[in-house]
Amino acid sequence: MAKYAIGVDFGTESGRAVLVDTADGREIASSVHPYANGVIDEKLPGTDIRLAPEWALQDPNDYLEVFRHAVPAVLSSGKVKPADVIGIGIDFTACTMLPTKVDGTPLCFLPEWRKNPHAWVKLWKHHAAQPEADKINATARSLRQPWLARYGGKIYSEWFFSKTLQILDEAPEIYQAADRLLEAADWVVWRLCGEEKRNSCTAGYKAMWSKREGFPENRYFAALDPRLEYVIDQKMSRRIYPIGEKAGELTPTASEWTGLPAGIAVAIANVDAHVSVPAVTVTEPGRMVMIMGTSTCHMLLGAEEHVVPGMCGYVEDGIIPGLFGYEAGQSGVGDIFAWLVDHGVPLQYHQEAANRGLSLHQLLTEKAAGQKPGEHGLLALDWWNGNRSTLVDVDLSGLLVGATLATRAEDIYRALIESTAYGTRVIIEAFEKNGVPVRELVACGGLPEKNAMLMQIYADVTGREIKISANKQAPALGSAMFGAVAAGKAAGGYDTIFEAAAKMAHLKKETYKPIPANQKIYDRLYAEYVRLYDYFGRGENNVMKTLKRIRDESIRT
Amino acid sequence: MAKYAIGVDFGTESGRAVLVDTADGREIASSVHPYANGVIDEKLPGTDIRLAPEWALQDPNDYLEVFRHAVPAVLSSGKVKPADVIGIGIDFTACTMLPTKVDGTPLCFLPEWRKNPHAWVKLWKHHAAQPEADKINATARSLRQPWLARYGGKIYSEWFFSKTLQILDEAPEIYQAADRLLEAADWVVWRLCGEEKRNSCTAGYKAMWSKREGFPENRYFAALDPRLEYVIDQKMSRRIYPIGEKAGELTPTASEWTGLPAGIAVAIANVDAHVSVPAVTVTEPGRMVMIMGTSTCHMLLGAEEHVVPGMCGYVEDGIIPGLFGYEAGQSGVGDIFAWLVDHGVPLQYHQEAANRGLSLHQLLTEKAAGQKPGEHGLLALDWWNGNRSTLVDVDLSGLLVGATLATRAEDIYRALIESTAYGTRVIIEAFEKNGVPVRELVACGGLPEKNAMLMQIYADVTGREIKISANKQAPALGSAMFGAVAAGKAAGGYDTIFEAAAKMAHLKKETYKPIPANQKIYDRLYAEYVRLYDYFGRGENNVMKTLKRIRDESIRT
Repeated sequence: MAKYAIGVDFGTESGRAVLVDTADGREIASSVHPYANGVIDEKLPGTDIRLAPEWALQDPNDYLEVFRHAVPAVLSSGKVKPADVIGIGIDFTACTMLPTKVDGTPLCFLPEWRKNPHAWVKLWKHHAAQPEADKINATARSLRQPWLARYGGKIYSEWFFSKTLQILDEAPEIYQAADRLLEAADWVVWRLCGEEKRNSCTAGYKAMWSKREGFPENRYFAALDPRLEYVIDQKMSRRIYPIGEKAGELTPTASEWTGLPAGIAVAIANVDAHVSVPAVTVTEPGRMVMIMGTSTCHMLLGAEEHVVPGMCGYVEDGIIPGLFGYEAGQSGVGDIFAWLVDHGVPLQYHQEAANRGLSLHQLLTEKAAGQKPGEHGLLALDWWNGNRSTLVDVDLSGLLVGATLATRAEDIYRALIESTAYGTRVIIEAFEKNGVPVRELVACGGLPEKNAMLMQIYADVTGREIKISANKQAPALGSAMFGAVAAGKAAGGYDTIFEAAAKMAHLKKETYKPIPANQKIYDRLYAEYVRLYDYFGRGENNVMKTLKRIRDESIRT
Repeated sequence: MAKYAIGVDFGTESGRAVLVDTADGREIASSVHPYANGVIDEKLPGTDIRLAPEWALQDPNDYLEVFRHAVPAVLSSGKVKPADVIGIGIDFTACTMLPTKVDGTPLCFLPEWRKNPHAWVKLWKHHAAQPEADKINATARSLRQPWLARYGGKIYSEWFFSKTLQILDEAPEIYQAADRLLEAADWVVWRLCGEEKRNSCTAGYKAMWSKREGFPENRYFAALDPRLEYVIDQKMSRRIYPIGEKAGELTPTASEWTGLPAGIAVAIANVDAHVSVPAVTVTEPGRMVMIMGTSTCHMLLGAEEHVVPGMCGYVEDGIIPGLFGYEAGQSGVGDIFAWLVDHGVPLQYHQEAANRGLSLHQLLTEKAAGQKPGEHGLLALDWWNGNRSTLVDVDLSGLLVGATLATRAEDIYRALIESTAYGTRVIIEAFEKNGVPVRELVACGGLPEKNAMLMQIYADVTGREIKISANKQAPALGSAMFGAVAAGKAAGGYDTIFEAAAKMAHLKKETYKPIPANQKIYDRLYAEYVRLYDYFGRGENNVMKTLKRIRDESIRT
C-alpha cells in the first residue's frame, strides 16, 4: 500500500505544504498559506512603532498557522488517509532567528516584550546588523580565527551572530530575557516534536559551527562582547544534529494542528536552498545546483575540503551526509529584472502586454529573445542588491554601460539577465580554480520554469549544460524526502537520502546546451564584465561606496 | 517713427520668422512654417529610394517656403507696414550644405539629378561621412596641418569637407555636376539678395577657414583626393564676409515671396547657435552662452587666440567681429532626458501625469526636485549620443552607476541631468585651463524655460551664476539684430552689433546662483565623474568601443 511524506517549505511570504508519494516522489497535493503579518518592515503589528529601513521581522505565529492550514489542506485535497503519512520534514529561510523562553515560547508572544522589535523573528533579509558583522569580521581577523576561511573570509550581516550581537547591542534586556536563541527552522521542528534539536545546516552555514571544530571558542565571543562569552552554552547548544536524522515524533498538540497521526517521524530541519539539492537528483560532487528566483543560491558538493575565496561557506554534512556542501550566492537576480519591469518600461509596452494577455516579463523576453549576443551593445554589473559571491559586499551597486538613444527596455532587460549569468560564471570559475569541480548545472526555482531565453543565455555564458528540476516545488519535495528518511525503510520510507533521491527526485528530459557561436561572443563580453567586476569590485575605483556614503550623508543632513 | 527688422531662424524641422522693433528688440510677431519634407532620413521624396541609417537630407524648396509663408505672416499679424521694415537677417543650422549650378539652382531641383540622394541638402545631423572625417583627420595629422589645432585636434563627421568628400567618394558625378558647394545659410542669403556671399561663421567653424590663414592649402586637398585639389577655387570661394556685414539688397523676386520692399538690407548669414550670443547680451569675453535643447552648444568669446583641446573650434570674427569665438558642445542633453521619459518610466507615472495634466518631464522633475544632491546615490556619464567636447568621440556611450533595487525613475532622471551639468563643467574647466576665462553663464534655448531644477543644478555644479535670455527665440532675435546692423544707423538700425546688442538684447531679472551647501556635495560627485570620464573616455578601458564593435559584428552576421 502507498505511503506518503509531507514536506513544508517556509518561504519569505508564505509557507507551502506538499504531499508526495514516497515510492516515486510524485506530488499528490500542494497548498500555500500566506503569512498574515508577511514581512514586517514598516511598523510592528498592532503598534505605531516604526522600524528602521534595513529591518525585516516576522511573526512566529504565522509559521504555526501554516501547520494549521496548509497541512490539513493537502490531506484533504490529496484524499490520503492520515494514517498513510509516515513522516514530515520542513525547510526554512535562513538565517531567520528568534529569542525564546526555555520552553520555546517566543519572547514576542509575551506581553512584556511584544512591543520590542528585537523580541520578534529576524528574517533572513533583515540587513540592519552590518556594524555587528563588521565587528565579527574584524575581531576574527585580529584573533586569527581559522574558521573565517570556511566562509570565504567574511561573515555576512544576515547571519546568526550578526543578528545576535545586534540584539545585545541595541536591546540587552531582550538578550538577557532570552533563554534560547535559535533558527526558526529548529524552532518549528521543536514545536512539532517537542524537542529542541538543532540542525547542522544552519549551524554550519550561518553560525560558524563545523562538525570537526564545533563553534568558535568562548574567548572569541568574549572579545566580541564580554556578555557574549558563554552564549553557546547559555542560550544555544553544542549538540548539533546532522540533516537526514530523525528529530523526534509528532506531539499530540502538533497532531491536532496538522491532522497527522501523533508519533510519526519528524526530520531534522533543513534550509530551503540546501534541501533542494537532493530534490533535483544531486547527491554527488561536480553538479552545481542553482536555485534561481529573486536571488540565486548555488549549491555544490565536494568530496574534499577546499577554501574558496568569496564563497558564502562550506559545511561538512551541510547538504548531504558525508560530503562537503559548498554554497555561493547572487544577492539580486529575479529582483533586478523585476526592478526594470516596475520602473523602466515604456507605456506602450504596458498597453501591449495588457492587450495580449502577457506579463511584462513575457513581453520583454519575447522582444529580447530574437537578439543575437552582443547585439544590444550593453553590459551591466548585476549588483543592484550588492554582491554576495565572490565579493561579499552589500555596498556595491548596479552599473549599466553602453546606453545610447537607441537603447530599448528589452535591451536592458536582456543585458541584466546576461549580467547575472556572468556573475554565475565568476562563481563557477572561483570554485574550479580552488579545486571544487563544476561539470554540470542543475536549476530549480521560479526562473527556469518561466524563461527559456534566460536558461539558454546561462548555458551559453557558462559553457555548461543545464538540467532542470522536474518538480516545481523542489524545497518542499526535498523536505518530504527527508521526512521519508526520518521515517525509515521499515515504515515505508528510506534509510538514507541517497536512496530517497534515487527514487523520489527527477529532472526534465529537456536540457539547455551551450551554442558554440553564442559562447564565442559571450566569452568576449565576459572578459569585459570581469574587467569591470575587478575594477569596481576590488577597490581600484570605489565610486559605488563613495556614492552610498554621499547618499547617506545627504539623507542625514 | 518705429522701424523694424526681421530675423528668420532655419531650424531642423521648421523655419521661424520674427518681427522686432529695432529700438528695443521687442518681439512684435512670430510665425513658424514647418518644412513639408522635414528631415529626410528614410526615403527620398517621391521615390522608393531608401536612405542608409545615418543619412539626413533636406529639400531646399522647404527653405524658400519659409520666406513665402512665415515672413508675410509676421507682417500681417504684427500689423506693420512693410515700408517700415529696414532689414532682414537669417540664421541656419550648420553644417547644412548642398551642391548647386552656377546660378544657385540646387542639383536636386534638376530632373537628371533628383533621384540621386547626394544632389539634396545634407542636413547637419547627416552622420554618414565618418570614414571621410577619419581620412581628413589622418591626412591632416600626417601632413602636420596647423589648422587642426584650432578644432581641438579633430574634424567632425558633420562638417563641410567630410560631407563634400562623401559626395566625391560615393557620387563623383554629382561632385562633377556641382558648380558650387555651399552652406544652406549662404544659399538662402543668395536667394534673397541675388549674390553669393559666404559668411565667416560657417567657413570658420565648419570648413577649416580662418581670417588669417584662409583655407588649407591645395596640396592638402590633393592629398585627400587628387580630384579635390582645386575645390576651393572651382566650387567654393576664397572671399569670405565677416558676420555683421550687409550681403546685399532684397531682390524683386524675394520681395514678391516675402512682401518686403525690394532693396532693403540683407545681412550676411549666420548660424543659429552663434547668432544667439549677442541676442542674449553677450558681446564680450568671459560670459559663456549655453544654447540648451536636445543638445547643448557652448559659445564663448575671447580677446586672445588659445588652443583648447577637444573644443569644436574657434574662429576669429566667428561670432562677434574683432573677437575670437570659441565653440564647444554636448551631443546629448535634452535628448537623453527624453530617452528616459520614452523608455524608462513606470506605468503609474504615466497615469499620474495624465490625471494631473502634467508632462512626464514635469512629473519627474517634481519628484526629483525635493532631493538633496547625492541623495539618489547615482552617477552617470552623459554619453548616450557620444561625447562632442572634450573627447570628440561618437563611439562613447552612456553609463549609469549606483543603481539599487530602490532606484526610481526620478532618481535616474535627476542623475542624467546632473551628468550633463558635469559635462558642461568639464568644458568650462578645459576653457579656463587653456586661457579662455568663463566668469558667468548665460542660457537660452528650450530647457532653461522649462526646468528650474535643471538650471539650479547647473549653477550648483558649475559654481557659476546663470542668467537667462529674456527672449524665447534668441536665434531669430539675433538674426533680426544683424538685419538691423545690415541696414545701418541712418536707416533706423545700428552701425555695429555691439550697439544693437546694447539696445535689442535682454536678460531676465531672475538668475540662478550657486548654493554653497550643494556645491560642496557636487564637487565630490564631480571628482568621481571626472575619474570615470577619464577612465572610460581616454582609452584606459575601451569597453564602450568594444561593445559597439561586438554589436556591429553581431548585427552583420
